[in-house]
Amino acid sequence: MVHPVSDSHPYFPLDLHLPDYVPLQVGFDYILGVFAVAVITVFASTWRLSGRHKHLRRSERLMACWFMVTGLIHFVVEGWVVYKADFYQDKSGNYLSDTWKEYSKADSRYASRDSFIISMEAITAFLWGPLCPLLVWGIFNAKPWRYTLMLIVSVGQIYGDVLYFGTCYLEGFVHSRPEPMYFWFYFVVVNAIWIVVPLACVAHAWRAISAAVGSGKPKAKRK
Amino acid sequence: MVHPVSDSHPYFPLDLHLPDYVPLQVGFDYILGVFAVAVITVFASTWRLSGRHKHLRRSERLMACWFMVTGLIHFVVEGWVVYKADFYQDKSGNYLSDTWKEYSKADSRYASRDSFIISMEAITAFLWGPLCPLLVWGIFNAKPWRYTLMLIVSVGQIYGDVLYFGTCYLEGFVHSRPEPMYFWFYFVVVNAIWIVVPLACVAHAWRAISAAVGSGKPKAKRK
Repeated sequence: MVHPVSDSHPYFPLDLHLPDYVPLQVGFDYILGVFAVAVITVFASTWRLSGRHKHLRRSERLMACWFMVTGLIHFVVEGWVVYKADFYQDKSGNYLSDTWKEYSKADSRYASRDSFIISMEAITAFLWGPLCPLLVWGIFNAKPWRYTLMLIVSVGQIYGDVLYFGTCYLEGFVHSRPEPMYFWFYFVVVNAIWIVVPLACVAHAWRAISAAVGSGKPKAKRK
Repeated sequence: MVHPVSDSHPYFPLDLHLPDYVPLQVGFDYILGVFAVAVITVFASTWRLSGRHKHLRRSERLMACWFMVTGLIHFVVEGWVVYKADFYQDKSGNYLSDTWKEYSKADSRYASRDSFIISMEAITAFLWGPLCPLLVWGIFNAKPWRYTLMLIVSVGQIYGDVLYFGTCYLEGFVHSRPEPMYFWFYFVVVNAIWIVVPLACVAHAWRAISAAVGSGKPKAKRK
């Protein structure tokens, strides 16, 4: 539905109907600062914990840190936007609502409740989210399913992200503010992380599984 | 955009703007008949071929048949709808265009070029599609990466399908004609196949990988 350009909000396209928008209660520097401190804390704690598991290579310790960080981002940050449909009207100064008010400048589909975005984020938050710490536990304890779960979560992240970019491309990138900060940094660079790192994890799991399964045909099981 | 209910087409919602719709040139029985013959032929040929590989269990032979059939459906049928945006205006009697004219009664988003549908189908047709026969070759020759590729393709199929249902749910199932044939058979039952069978493939790959990777911690690699 096309509405007059009277709604007061910073999101593109400008004629998007988003009534009762409440501007951010905290500054961008505060949002980014809290986020950075949280990520560094979780990363460093997981790194420290992983040191107790002497069989882990450095690359495996780094992957454990990645999955703990990304799992918490999925569950807490992305979980919030699925749960809180009216985050852009939130007056409380809630950190997560304000984070999504800021990010929606790069993609207004979060505010307009695009059906693909909400479906994809619901799976990401409430399926990949909890599976990530489970995977970290599996890596720490060398569970035989750790590579399998790593593949599942990483393929899910990559596919969701490819569809995220694909839908934007097909719709002509109309949901993003044009400033480089929003389009290039928030939208392109930040989301690209969830293609690049999961690809490395897929490659790691692929190699590990192939080495374990081995080559050559197994013995005949039937005549 | 809302248009008057003057466009003559059988798709829901009825006010969908789809100009110059050309009715199906062939009957539903012809579409289903050709499809069934093709599926049975591919399935039977793959089954026969798989018999030459004596190390394969019956379940593995069945999976090879599944991946050959689903790969061809992805590449040929789903590839067509990605490529042929104006299939619903096709006067030629092309089998694939008519198949999609028929299926669109269960989901008009194919005709209206919904951005999620087209993105998801593009990945399905042109990535999962070619990977499926590669996987069949890998299964036949017991390649060490066969379970890995099986996981990747199957997780992709499941996730795409879950999002397919999820987006419909969030939009209130407005794209489907209400007759049980279209909603329950085409939309629910047919698509559910691509959740149920891939889940069985994920379970198979999971067990095989876990058995190969083994349990217990590997020897210490560093102090």
